[in-house]
Amino acid sequence: MKYKIKIAYDGTNYNGFQIQPNGISIQETVEKVLSKISSEKISITGSGRTDAGVHANGQVAHFNYKKQNLSLKSLNSLLPNDIRILSLEEASEDFHARFSAKEKIYLYHITTDKVQSPFERRYALHYTFPIDKEKMIASLHYFLGTKNFTSFANELLPHKNPVKTLHELSLLKTKSGFILKFRGDGFLYKMVRNITGTLLDIARGKLDPHALPFIFEEKSRSFAGKTAPPHALFLESVLY
Amino acid sequence: MKYKIKIAYDGTNYNGFQIQPNGISIQETVEKVLSKISSEKISITGSGRTDAGVHANGQVAHFNYKKQNLSLKSLNSLLPNDIRILSLEEASEDFHARFSAKEKIYLYHITTDKVQSPFERRYALHYTFPIDKEKMIASLHYFLGTKNFTSFANELLPHKNPVKTLHELSLLKTKSGFILKFRGDGFLYKMVRNITGTLLDIARGKLDPHALPFIFEEKSRSFAGKTAPPHALFLESVLY
Repeated sequence: MKYKIKIAYDGTNYNGFQIQPNGISIQETVEKVLSKISSEKISITGSGRTDAGVHANGQVAHFNYKKQNLSLKSLNSLLPNDIRILSLEEASEDFHARFSAKEKIYLYHITTDKVQSPFERRYALHYTFPIDKEKMIASLHYFLGTKNFTSFANELLPHKNPVKTLHELSLLKTKSGFILKFRGDGFLYKMVRNITGTLLDIARGKLDPHALPFIFEEKSRSFAGKTAPPHALFLESVLY
Repeated sequence: MKYKIKIAYDGTNYNGFQIQPNGISIQETVEKVLSKISSEKISITGSGRTDAGVHANGQVAHFNYKKQNLSLKSLNSLLPNDIRILSLEEASEDFHARFSAKEKIYLYHITTDKVQSPFERRYALHYTFPIDKEKMIASLHYFLGTKNFTSFANELLPHKNPVKTLHELSLLKTKSGFILKFRGDGFLYKMVRNITGTLLDIARGKLDPHALPFIFEEKSRSFAGKTAPPHALFLESVLY
């Protein structure tokens, strides 16, 4: 039987979603619990990796499981409380958490208050430089559509297709700052954080938005802004 | 010179606001930083204590300080990042954080989703019993107005006036559950958490709301509901 699970996690204390030689990953923590319940080795396949420190409200994974006794309650009771399985359902045999995914939504949280609330310290970037939010909003369209995102990817492997489609990039105002919302068919390694760093450079006046088409054309990571920190990024949902 | 500060804190790792023989308090942590900056012993007076594990978005305190070099930035740079001074202003000589306070607002956060989000685990009570929210709302009026709250206080000292005025007690719906909002002229020890525990008993059908007038009359802690846990309670603001 194939199962599909939706996972939320506070990534603060993990070395990312995917199993790594160093540090504890979300994947191995969930696999250990599943393997314990089933008394056999269970491997899960996520919709994609998230980096060390990145959070999720809606990561999705699938796995094969022979027995019938799986319950949300027993799973969550064995997991640490910074990882929660939000839902568990049977999936069709051809469902694949990664290959069946149509779109993903990421949210990047930024607070611009003079003093950051202690309740946001783990979940939002505190950005205190004076920024021109309207200028940032006016430059969002440069990233939309089907493009070669090489200039905004880290450690891009030669066999990886760097062309992705970004369907939505919008700024949502919040009480303490704003959220950048990314919805696309796929994302390269650190792409969301690199676009965020670039947009912050534009908002701060360090980068002219008219340079963006040239940065895209260069197909090199050296021209765009710095990688924004991981603790403010959330994998919000995966759409199938 | 007298200063008034507004403090936000994540109470998870503290033994309450007020200095205690055991464990680290918010008060002593702030006093240490102020004393370090001023090179003299500074004591602060809060609007009132908050229990171990309780949080604040708007605790207020005052202190006397001789020098002129106090800045919000230097204060926060020396404090641990789960305590933030949100504002700092000169106060008139007759200002007193406790005695000048007219009203306080407390919020008690409850999530009723089947699975609690990992991002709410430190800041909201996860209540999974089936509840009748309308019944709870219909019983809120019993607590309003000027009353003797002895039955809802722990360790009430003989010299303490048990009569308090609750101006507002309301239920605010949220995405994952609801918030109980308390606004009153003062609160006895654990009063907010005891009223919350009692309201949850009513919502769950364990306690008939018509028993509330008798519980008030008994003037004994033994009849009301259990004390709700501290981690879901926020001192939201103090009004002067």
